[in-house]
Amino acid sequence: MAQVKLVNYEEATAEVRAVFDDIMKTRNTEYINNIWRALAVHPPLLKRFWLQMKEVMVKPSKLDPLTKELIYLAVSVNNNCEYCITSHTFAARRHGLDDAMLAEFNEIVALANAGNRLTMGLQVEPDERFKPKHDDKAWSVGKKPAATRKQPKPSR
Amino acid sequence: MAQVKLVNYEEATAEVRAVFDDIMKTRNTEYINNIWRALAVHPPLLKRFWLQMKEVMVKPSKLDPLTKELIYLAVSVNNNCEYCITSHTFAARRHGLDDAMLAEFNEIVALANAGNRLTMGLQVEPDERFKPKHDDKAWSVGKKPAATRKQPKPSR
Amino acid sequence: MAQVKLVNYEEATAEVRAVFDDIMKTRNTEYINNIWRALAVHPPLLKRFWLQMKEVMVKPSKLDPLTKELIYLAVSVNNNCEYCITSHTFAARRHGLDDAMLAEFNEIVALANAGNRLTMGLQVEPDERFKPKHDDKAWSVGKKPAATRKQPKPSR
Amino acid sequence: MAQVKLVNYEEATAEVRAVFDDIMKTRNTEYINNIWRALAVHPPLLKRFWLQMKEVMVKPSKLDPLTKELIYLAVSVNNNCEYCITSHTFAARRHGLDDAMLAEFNEIVALANAGNRLTMGLQVEPDERFKPKHDDKAWSVGKKPAATRKQPKPSR
Amino acid sequence: MAQVKLVNYEEATAEVRAVFDDIMKTRNTEYINNIWRALAVHPPLLKRFWLQMKEVMVKPSKLDPLTKELIYLAVSVNNNCEYCITSHTFAARRHGLDDAMLAEFNEIVALANAGNRLTMGLQVEPDERFKPKHDDKAWSVGKKPAATRKQPKPSR
Amino acid sequence: MAQVKLVNYEEATAEVRAVFDDIMKTRNTEYINNIWRALAVHPPLLKRFWLQMKEVMVKPSKLDPLTKELIYLAVSVNNNCEYCITSHTFAARRHGLDDAMLAEFNEIVALANAGNRLTMGLQVEPDERFKPKHDDKAWSVGKKPAATRKQPKPSR
Repeated sequence: MAQVKLVNYEEATAEVRAVFDDIMKTRNTEYINNIWRALAVHPPLLKRFWLQMKEVMVKPSKLDPLTKELIYLAVSVNNNCEYCITSHTFAARRHGLDDAMLAEFNEIVALANAGNRLTMGLQVEPDERFKPKHDDKAWSVGKKPAATRKQPKPSR
Repeated sequence: MAQVKLVNYEEATAEVRAVFDDIMKTRNTEYINNIWRALAVHPPLLKRFWLQMKEVMVKPSKLDPLTKELIYLAVSVNNNCEYCITSHTFAARRHGLDDAMLAEFNEIVALANAGNRLTMGLQVEPDERFKPKHDDKAWSVGKKPAATRKQPKPSR
Repeated sequence: MAQVKLVNYEEATAEVRAVFDDIMKTRNTEYINNIWRALAVHPPLLKRFWLQMKEVMVKPSKLDPLTKELIYLAVSVNNNCEYCITSHTFAARRHGLDDAMLAEFNEIVALANAGNRLTMGLQVEPDERFKPKHDDKAWSVGKKPAATRKQPKPSR
Repeated sequence: MAQVKLVNYEEATAEVRAVFDDIMKTRNTEYINNIWRALAVHPPLLKRFWLQMKEVMVKPSKLDPLTKELIYLAVSVNNNCEYCITSHTFAARRHGLDDAMLAEFNEIVALANAGNRLTMGLQVEPDERFKPKHDDKAWSVGKKPAATRKQPKPSR
Repeated sequence: MAQVKLVNYEEATAEVRAVFDDIMKTRNTEYINNIWRALAVHPPLLKRFWLQMKEVMVKPSKLDPLTKELIYLAVSVNNNCEYCITSHTFAARRHGLDDAMLAEFNEIVALANAGNRLTMGLQVEPDERFKPKHDDKAWSVGKKPAATRKQPKPSR
Repeated sequence: MAQVKLVNYEEATAEVRAVFDDIMKTRNTEYINNIWRALAVHPPLLKRFWLQMKEVMVKPSKLDPLTKELIYLAVSVNNNCEYCITSHTFAARRHGLDDAMLAEFNEIVALANAGNRLTMGLQVEPDERFKPKHDDKAWSVGKKPAATRKQPKPSR
């Protein structure tokens, strides 16, 4: 049972309805998942989280949709978030994931966890050759063009 | 400083050298990463972990190499394994990851963590429609063909 | 060493400069932290993360600024994020946290981790009386006002 | 189902009853939560954990009771401890947390997780100016007053 | 650099010195680790944590000292606590852990993490036969002996 | 409900049956746990994970069986894997763990989590004297015996 009452469309404010409408339109469905109905108790949060999800997960980008779902799912498995594993496995299947691929995906997640722990437990240090190499300069306000620079307060 | 001394080629046993040779051949390199040199203090572990890594990450499969690296990396970021983030970001770059994609990848990892915590904190339950639906039968030994079934011990 | 080159003001695009300017103005400083300079390699991410940080952490809300910093810090300690612990302990000190309060804070974080593990390890189930009680209705598209409801496609 | 049988008052030893009595008195209730009934299978653990909880969470201190509950809850959400989220959300509500504040709290937890992962994934290093500055001296036994110092064993 | 100044013996209060003395006596050493010197900024925390450590880790109990260190270490590896891995690997070596056992230990930690994630990712449910079976009765104040039961306040 | 259908003996391929048979023989039982039935959807994964489990957890080694189970369980509690806590507590009980030892075990896990967070939150650095001391030489291909060294490709 969620810690807050799930909001339904007819009891929603105009602000919440606008988000629900956008979710349904974007996803081409008339169903709103429980998470959005829960977030609706605090409309600014609902709005912020939906806009992020839309920009990061829905909007076309350099990574393809299935890869994006698998990255999201890898995190969800690591955090053991039942809701998220359920809904994002469902989403990944819609993008073509089958049982064998799901098993393969989970084996990589398992192997990464194993490899991480071996490395952490034995405190192995990164090889020099794999470290990034760039020459970072310290931040300096002197590098801001004069026009936008803060003026020292006049002494009185 | 690793908890164990990093093994070098000339002091390695034949068993360890065989693994080192296979790593170098498989990866077409003459360099052995610190993690393998650390695992070499316990040859059976070195062998098991390398064989898994080779079968899961190197052998061609349904998921493409960059996707596999990104799944591995997502776990490593979540576990904050510096060694693993360093070496697998390096590997992912070799498979075509650029700065913008790395940023995009990390934003998905960040968003998934945010979404996971919102769901967990509010204890939102999975929607029925996203749950898998299959009819699992209980395991039953009666379903084993008679020939391989354990015989009850004769009473005396 | 960060995985990406830290962006400096004079090499930044107009889009990035606008965010840097807003950070400096909002925080009344001429210094930009490393995290923002790193995120600047992918301007849409920089913008999204800054806007969220500003709305959630800076904008006045029901929770006071020190409490907000301590919630943020509790998560950062749990995830062992050195950068985040360093910068948010600094921020919390600015809001009045002293050594004794920092120690008290960390003891609560430690105690919660202990309590969580005792409960998880012994698999203790939540007491009925602490569970939320509300009567959630299933989502139903019939509850959308007719005007905004999707029309069935006309058959031809 | 807990891994151990929940102890009831009438079957409890005197040692356990003393703790149960103190919990009921301190909290002004006649109800004992499941966690205490589970810990009662090992009385020294029950006693130690209750005394800590009482000193850290109940005893007045520099941090106010709601802030303390929210720090505890932030950890519990991060660890996904269902029991702890349920009972400490209940406790926080008793100290004045309403739905909007709960949502705001969870958004901070979510944002912190997002920020942590962005920083960890990109391996951003702490800014020098946020690091603590103090001059730690090495521990030296010579600094113990002579009277309490261990005497070298007399040579024979 | 620790977030608080490490306390030295000669600047410590009597309360802190008493704990330092007990640590040195219990461990038969004249050296105090950094963690205790840091906790000393808040003496009640120093005292509570040391007493627990002493009762749980030092005092003889059903589990042998090496097993206890390995349980502590398994958690520390999982949480990637560098300080804790360093100091408890050192402690475990004192109790007889050698390189091969350390490697074996870390392989179990790695395997458990792999097994955990496979189970969580595929959402496999516990087999009925492994669940604990006991008949818990609800807590009932009626079960408290009458003498200690709270009296209803007399109405006036 | 698992994300994949649990495989039963009579519908299993020969490859899967061979693993099931080995599990039953090794464990002297006619029952196959849910996890193996789930992994059976991807036979190479089933095989790899079982062989590892057999070599690491079943095969006699320097660490005794109960200690190995407790290390595995410590990780499972830390990751809050319900399936794993249930099945490995069951296994540990078979190796002699009783209620008081289980409580003691969980208190160590809890204490380690508390200690880890105190150390991480206060960013205490490892004492020099606990750090491993060995003199690692850089990997050098020149150290490979000439016979196995890669020959430079002949220029043409």
